[in-house]
Amino acid sequence: MANKIITIGRQFGSGGRELGRRLAEALQIAYYDKEILTEISKRTQLTEEYVHNVVEHHPYPLLPITVGHSLYPDMAFQLQQSVYTEQSNIIKEMAAASDCVIVGRCADYILHDIHPFRIFVYADMESRIARCHARAPEGEHLSDKELKQMIQKVDKGRAKYYEFYTGEKWGDKSSYDLCINTSNVVIKELVPHLAAFLS
Amino acid sequence: MANKIITIGRQFGSGGRELGRRLAEALQIAYYDKEILTEISKRTQLTEEYVHNVVEHHPYPLLPITVGHSLYPDMAFQLQQSVYTEQSNIIKEMAAASDCVIVGRCADYILHDIHPFRIFVYADMESRIARCHARAPEGEHLSDKELKQMIQKVDKGRAKYYEFYTGEKWGDKSSYDLCINTSNVVIKELVPHLAAFLS
Repeated sequence: MANKIITIGRQFGSGGRELGRRLAEALQIAYYDKEILTEISKRTQLTEEYVHNVVEHHPYPLLPITVGHSLYPDMAFQLQQSVYTEQSNIIKEMAAASDCVIVGRCADYILHDIHPFRIFVYADMESRIARCHARAPEGEHLSDKELKQMIQKVDKGRAKYYEFYTGEKWGDKSSYDLCINTSNVVIKELVPHLAAFLS
Repeated sequence: MANKIITIGRQFGSGGRELGRRLAEALQIAYYDKEILTEISKRTQLTEEYVHNVVEHHPYPLLPITVGHSLYPDMAFQLQQSVYTEQSNIIKEMAAASDCVIVGRCADYILHDIHPFRIFVYADMESRIARCHARAPEGEHLSDKELKQMIQKVDKGRAKYYEFYTGEKWGDKSSYDLCINTSNVVIKELVPHLAAFLS
């Protein structure tokens, strides 16, 4: 039987990562998030920080693969492509190895052929700002306005990245099996029911 | 304590009505769907068929309320407004009377102030066509193409109706607490978990 694979797309500050981690715990299956970056870094000899920047913030202009190589023999672009290729390989290997929850990184699209259960987690801006405050590292005191700008910037990057590699609109419900609004939800209370449905 | 109110928006053929009915059964609370039309019909002296047509198919052009009365003293339009007003009253009364599940009819928007749990049910076209075939009345043999056209027509009507009265995009996930893709789901198996979460 095929492995049970759950992918999680999420708006920044929506608690998607917490939901993924708790879900993996409840189902007692593997959980992959930053582990993927570490693995890419090992395989490509790029630093984790660089890989993170490419995946989350897209410092370089995005060009379609078909024109990239011939017209833009640009080092940064080539590296970006390598990162995506390695990432796809790693995600496929992880999904083939065991049941798992994979957060972000176009995993829903990369694993399309094996039909993962695709969750998208979102929330209204107010509760995303509140969540960011609650989980801020000690000493970090961003204002609501600064947090809102950061949230919008990160999500813009995620949307661009997703749309570039998949050709689909990031967060469009037709690409997911379940879209969960965490605005008024205690994630810890939701997860056992979600796990029961998925197990 | 406020009543537990669950509203269900749904694409035609997605099984949203089945989900609503089963959820109400599982939670042992009231279920309102066509009952609303019957009640509107009683109060307005319009036939149920007429009310259904106004609510589902929108036979008349939609005009903003603000210009409607002064510039278009049109009987059909006035009737349409009466139907919506009566519908809003009835839905508010139902929500005030007891816990309930309400399917369609902008209930999520009409009850906005009392924060219902808002579900949207959707599915891909293939599985919606399959669901329509499965529940077709005996003797009805529409082709896939005909069903697809009907599905698109009904949903276009629902979207127009919703957007006219709420100013929001029908089916946009930000207006809902949970969006459920029923393409690969047996609704009967999903409902107990959903009920457990909501009870």
